This record gives sequence, structure tokens and C-alpha cells, in this order.
Amino acid sequence: MRWVLIKNLKSHAGEEVEIRGWLYNQRSSGKVRFLILRDGTGLVQCVLTKEEAPGLFDLAGEITQESSLKLTGTVREEPRAPMGVELSVTGIELISRAEPYPITLKDHGVDFLADRRHLWIRSPRQAAILRIRSTVEQACRDFLNSRDFVLADAPIITPNACEGTSTLFEINYHDSRAYLSQSGQLYNEATAMALGRVYCFGPTFRAEKSKTRRHLMEFWMLEAEAAFLDYEDNIKLQEDLVYHLVQTVLERHRDDLRLLKRDISKLEAVSLPFPRLSYTEAVSLLNEKGHSFQWGDDFGAPDETVISESYSSPVFVHRFPAKIKAFYMEPDPKNPEVILGADLIAPEGYGEIIGGSQRISDLSLLERKIKEHNLPVDQFQWYLDLRRFGSVPHSGFGLGIERTVAWICGIEHVRESIPFPRTLYRMHP
Amino acid sequence: MRWVLIKNLKSHAGEEVEIRGWLYNQRSSGKVRFLILRDGTGLVQCVLTKEEAPGLFDLAGEITQESSLKLTGTVREEPRAPMGVELSVTGIELISRAEPYPITLKDHGVDFLADRRHLWIRSPRQAAILRIRSTVEQACRDFLNSRDFVLADAPIITPNACEGTSTLFEINYHDSRAYLSQSGQLYNEATAMALGRVYCFGPTFRAEKSKTRRHLMEFWMLEAEAAFLDYEDNIKLQEDLVYHLVQTVLERHRDDLRLLKRDISKLEAVSLPFPRLSYTEAVSLLNEKGHSFQWGDDFGAPDETVISESYSSPVFVHRFPAKIKAFYMEPDPKNPEVILGADLIAPEGYGEIIGGSQRISDLSLLERKIKEHNLPVDQFQWYLDLRRFGSVPHSGFGLGIERTVAWICGIEHVRESIPFPRTLYRMHP
Repeated sequence: MRWVLIKNLKSHAGEEVEIRGWLYNQRSSGKVRFLILRDGTGLVQCVLTKEEAPGLFDLAGEITQESSLKLTGTVREEPRAPMGVELSVTGIELISRAEPYPITLKDHGVDFLADRRHLWIRSPRQAAILRIRSTVEQACRDFLNSRDFVLADAPIITPNACEGTSTLFEINYHDSRAYLSQSGQLYNEATAMALGRVYCFGPTFRAEKSKTRRHLMEFWMLEAEAAFLDYEDNIKLQEDLVYHLVQTVLERHRDDLRLLKRDISKLEAVSLPFPRLSYTEAVSLLNEKGHSFQWGDDFGAPDETVISESYSSPVFVHRFPAKIKAFYMEPDPKNPEVILGADLIAPEGYGEIIGGSQRISDLSLLERKIKEHNLPVDQFQWYLDLRRFGSVPHSGFGLGIERTVAWICGIEHVRESIPFPRTLYRMHP
Repeated sequence: MRWVLIKNLKSHAGEEVEIRGWLYNQRSSGKVRFLILRDGTGLVQCVLTKEEAPGLFDLAGEITQESSLKLTGTVREEPRAPMGVELSVTGIELISRAEPYPITLKDHGVDFLADRRHLWIRSPRQAAILRIRSTVEQACRDFLNSRDFVLADAPIITPNACEGTSTLFEINYHDSRAYLSQSGQLYNEATAMALGRVYCFGPTFRAEKSKTRRHLMEFWMLEAEAAFLDYEDNIKLQEDLVYHLVQTVLERHRDDLRLLKRDISKLEAVSLPFPRLSYTEAVSLLNEKGHSFQWGDDFGAPDETVISESYSSPVFVHRFPAKIKAFYMEPDPKNPEVILGADLIAPEGYGEIIGGSQRISDLSLLERKIKEHNLPVDQFQWYLDLRRFGSVPHSGFGLGIERTVAWICGIEHVRESIPFPRTLYRMHP
């Protein structure tokens, strides 16, 4: 008997197949029993009648939630079923009978579920989110690979504090002080000068005392950097990437999005080019909407939400005041008080998903900026070398995966967008 | 003028193009000057004659190593050139003149180069290794994606010590003790029960007081896990994967392998199926070769080298004594003293590149093994839950990327197979 994944059942209509998985739920209407089996790729309804197979019918009734089993049966087209097919069961092999499963089909509290994250991820909703995350991550890579970017993994253990020390996790590195990386960007700039176009894609860490629905202590970030890429090229690269992510999920995960009750029309409304708003225009927009905000301040989550509400696509806010942005951002030659960079703010209040900029390529300007930001110049000598030896205009960006997935899936909290979230008060399981 | 990457020049023969990059070297034979330009995708020789362009000829002579520039010119087929083409230069735009470059074309010591890793990676040899690394990493993903595996990132910050505490990097997690992950496997087992077939691919950390040429403190590992995959399926999956990696590099990186002076015939000799040797047979082989080794001991690097020398493909050594392997490995039902797992040893003395096994699926056996290994049972309750609720036979493995890349590239030391290596005495730059 051929073992078939549930997601592929549609192409086996009329055939007898085997499926393997776990019992998600069952219900019975007297003489017909419906087993809902999940195998990680989808859910399918499997049907038994008392009349046709009384033995199996009784056996099935005793199978507990999350027990593992193999079912054999015939695939039948069934337009009313979520997968378009169901299975007429001809055989059941119980592999392991589950103890009473703690996560029942009723609602549970967040802490209860978080304590059982290793089981919670089996629920159809969580599994759908994780499948979409996997696709988003692969789509990031496919997009950059197709544009000649080379993966160059940045180190996690780092001696430098790239953007200040207050939010760093410190580790003891064979009796030296080291930190967990907050960004691979400085390393990306070095590898871009070696390989031309590069990206890194790994975990990054921020020890922020923050417990908003947008923050994790450990999150994954895609960071791309390219030699000879200017501010404008950089913006276009980013919008093409994000558009590609949305289209790829729409193409491959209709079923998962429906299961998540995502308003798909909101994703379909995303279109190129993305709107662009200067920081100064964004401040005016906030003020017009009765939202008090001073030029020179940084946006908080509520400000980003207000800005995003005016657009159906992600919106670039560009040319922030240099004072509130990282030291390495290239000043706008037309107005050096602002930088040639932009944040990309997701629709529907999901906040900033990308930060990017052209980088300073002039050695003396970069040295001055490091000092102005009170950073230790000696620790940045290697980074300054990139300007001593064949400096070129270059740009890059970082995309936060959890926020991007949360937005595309339409979920409330980023903690559901990663298999095992690390939050302020939680690193278990 | 169209900007073309050096790797793509071949398909522009006869056209006038622009290339952008850095001066790797130049030489002159009186009236002809040869500039070797690198752009991260390859090297190309660019030719100027004094007769045709006296001004450019003199300008070019003053360009220092690693200066950044744009060159325009006509692509000419040249069978003797490494790329098959060269450029007849018609224009030079110097972007930034490099200060005297520390890494000249003569030999330098390892520490000198390691201190300048951010520049060393620009050398043709290092760049070739990193390009191959990028391809190997993507080929891992493509292979698993094509077999319905879903990426499920494992956490880096972990509360548990999966395989003992002596080699863990400890971090302060908001005043709790936490560790940097040594393996995502336990988490993979949880996500496999949710998603069916999964992999994680991230940095892992071992605080080993080891400074051999095979060890790094921070290295990347591909770990795959699948429900309903048994020992035999697992072995086949691994050999198909490793074979795919070798074939992909042979297909796409002939030029890079030649630049590395890799003996390509050794890679071409890799064939399926890979040889398999039980641990007991391996002990006999060692003894036959006059290598003293006791049944029950673990292999060291010299033992693995001796074993690998008998084969042109990677070789599986299977059914190790349970006592020297991790607690979660399924005992062989025919002989419970050994486990249903295997290490894959690379040819040419590159050592173990994969460790894998079927996992224990029986709750009480797993509980007993945890106790026998003196591990804290309470910390493994979540892991035991995977056997309480729908346990299934499942297997998986972990592939070390740096060793795999070192073997494929034929390089001496794993430190050259990652952009910024972290070794016992070095975490800079």
C-alpha cells in the first residue's frame, strides 16, 4: 500500500492509499464515524460506517486524541471537505495510544499553552503558521539567490557592541567577555566587499526589557548587503522581496490562510511600487491625524500603526533624522541632517519589518560618526578598513522574519510565528 | 553601458560592457598592461596597450591593489584565460584608491591573516571557499524541501543541557541561567510530531577546549528529523543528501575547485550507495591495520582517518555501543548493546560529518536511559511528552557544514570554511 501525505491526497482520488499521522478529533453520528487525521501537511476527514465495518467502527471509537495511527482507505472526492477529498477507511493500525491530551479542542489560556509549546505546535492553527514561516524563509533565500546574492553566515559570538551595550546578552567566552549578535550587518559589509552581493540569515538577540506583542529576545533576521547598490536600488530590492514573499504565500498556502481565517483580500491588495513617505511627511501625517509628534523623535508602535492605516501596501518612511539612526547610515547629500535610509512599515499595525540604508563609504566621515555616537573607535578599526581598502557605495537592509510572518498570517502576537519563542519571562520548553 | 558580473562575461563575448570591482593584481610587459579585476563572482584579466590608450595606460599603472574601480571595455574570447574571456579596456573610473594593502600576494602567517579575516576573505581562494559554502547550504535546503521537509528553526537559547554541561556556553538570561544550543535535535523531534518532516539549520555552539583543525566553537549544523522514518530510511536519506551536495558543487563550481587546486577526481569518485561498516567491523579493520583499538572506546580523529582511507566515498559506521552514544538512540532489537544509528565519515581524513540515529519511541525505555545517563528527568518532561502523546518511530541526523565544506573544497583546516571562525583563542574580528 502506498503511503501518501495528506497534502497530496487530492491527486490520488479513487486510489487506495495509506496515511500516517495523529488523531486530531473524531465525531460520530450513530452509524457513521468521522476521524480527523493530521500528519503535519494537512488535515483530512476519514469516514467509517458501522454497517460496512463494525469491528473497525468500534475500535475507532476508542482512539484517543493525538494517538498515532496508520489508516488505509480509498480517497474520495468531496467538494465540501476542506481538502476537497476524504478517506473511506478500510483499515486502522493503532501505533501508540495517547494518554489524555492536555490541549483539548476548547480554549486554553496563553500561559497554559506556552508551557506546552512542544504540543501546542500540533494544533492546526500553529502548524499552519509554521508551514507559512518555512515558506517565507525559503522565499527570502530563493529571491536573493536569483539575484546573485551569496549566503555568508555572520558570526553569533561577537566582541563588539554594534548598536550600544544595554540590550546585549553577555557570554563568557573562555574567560573573555563576548556578546550574542544583534545584527550581522557590519560583517555583511565585509563579506560584500569580498563576494559582491551577500546575505546572512540567522538568529539575532536583544535583551530588551520589553514584553509587547512585537518583541522577542531571540528572533531571525534576513540581512542583505551589496556593493555598488545605492539608496534607490536598495528600496527597489526590498519592495520586490516583500512583494515576492506575499505572492509566494498566496500561491502556496491558500488552505493555511483560510484555516487561519486571514482576510486574504488584504494580502491581495499589496501592490508595487510601495508608497514612500519622508520622515518629515510622516510627522505631518501624524499631526494631521491629531496625533501629537515632534520632528526629531523616533516612532513608537502606535505611531507606526497610525502611518500604516493610510495604506494597503507596506509603506517606506525614508530620510529619518541622522540623530535617531545608526552611526553607519549615509547622510543625504541634499540635507545631511537626514539619512539615505528607510524603514518599511507593514500594513494593519504590524510595525516596522525592515530597516535599511545606504552605508557611509567615506573613511573620515565614518570615523567622525563613530566618535559622535560615543562608540569605541579602536574596536571598529576592522570595519574602518573596509573604507581604507577600496571603499565603494553600498547598501543593505534587515528584515525581521517573525513580524513579517505575523503580518502575512494576520496573527496577534509574534510569539506564535516562531516554533519556540523566547520572551522576557520565558525560555521553556 | 551595461554592468555585467564577471561570472557572466562569457555570454557577452564581443559586447562592450562595464564591470565593477577591485584590483586584485596587475602586471605590465612594457607596452601591454594586464589588470586582474575581482568582483566577488570571479576574476578577469583586463588588457590595455600603451599604443591604443596612452592616458589610460599610465593611469592604470598607478592603481593600487584593492582599489575599487569601474572598467568599460569589450569582452574578447580568450581560451587561455581562466574565465575563457578577457576585457579590452576602453575606460577606467577609479572609485577609491586603496591605502597600501596589508595582504600582498606573497605568503603570510596564519595569525596575520586571521587578524585580518575581514580582508583575507577577499583573496580568490577564500572567496571560492565561501561561494562553495553558500551553494552547499542552499543545496541542503533544496534537497530537503524537495522531500517535503519543513524548516522549523530550533531555539538557540535553551534551558536544558542536551548532552552534558561541560562544553556549554552559559548566558545570563534575565537573571536565569541559560545555555547556547549544542543541537536542535530535541526540538526537532517535537516539531516533527507537529509537521511530519522537519529540519533546522542554524549555528550551534561547543565550548570545547579543543584546537584541532576540525573544531570550531561556533559552527553551523543541518539537522533533519522525520516521523515514520526508520533507521534504514534515515541512512538512505543521508547518503542521497551528501551525494547531492557533491554533485551540485561539481556542477556549479568547477572554476572554484580548480582555483582551490582540488583533486576533482576524488569528488567524482564518490558514488552511491555509500559503504557501510558496523562499529564491530570497524574495530576489526583498525586492528588489522595494526592500529590498537578496544571495542567499547569511541573513535578519535586518527581512527576515523584510518577508516576513511579504505574508501573513496563517505563511509557509514553503524551500530555503535549504546554506552558511548547519546541517551535517545534506539537500541538495536537484535542486540540492545548497540544502537540503530550511524556516523558518516568523510573520505581523505576529514572525519565525521554526520551523526544520526533512530530515536527511542518507548516512554519507559527513554525514561530509564535519561536516568542511566544521569540527566535531570524533570527537565526532560516536555521531551518525554512526545512519547506520551502519539509516539511514532522516528529518526534524524545532524550534518556539520564546516567539515563538509572543508572536505569538498579539500582544505586543511575548518577555520577557512566559515566567514568569521570562532576558535579557542579567537573571536575577532
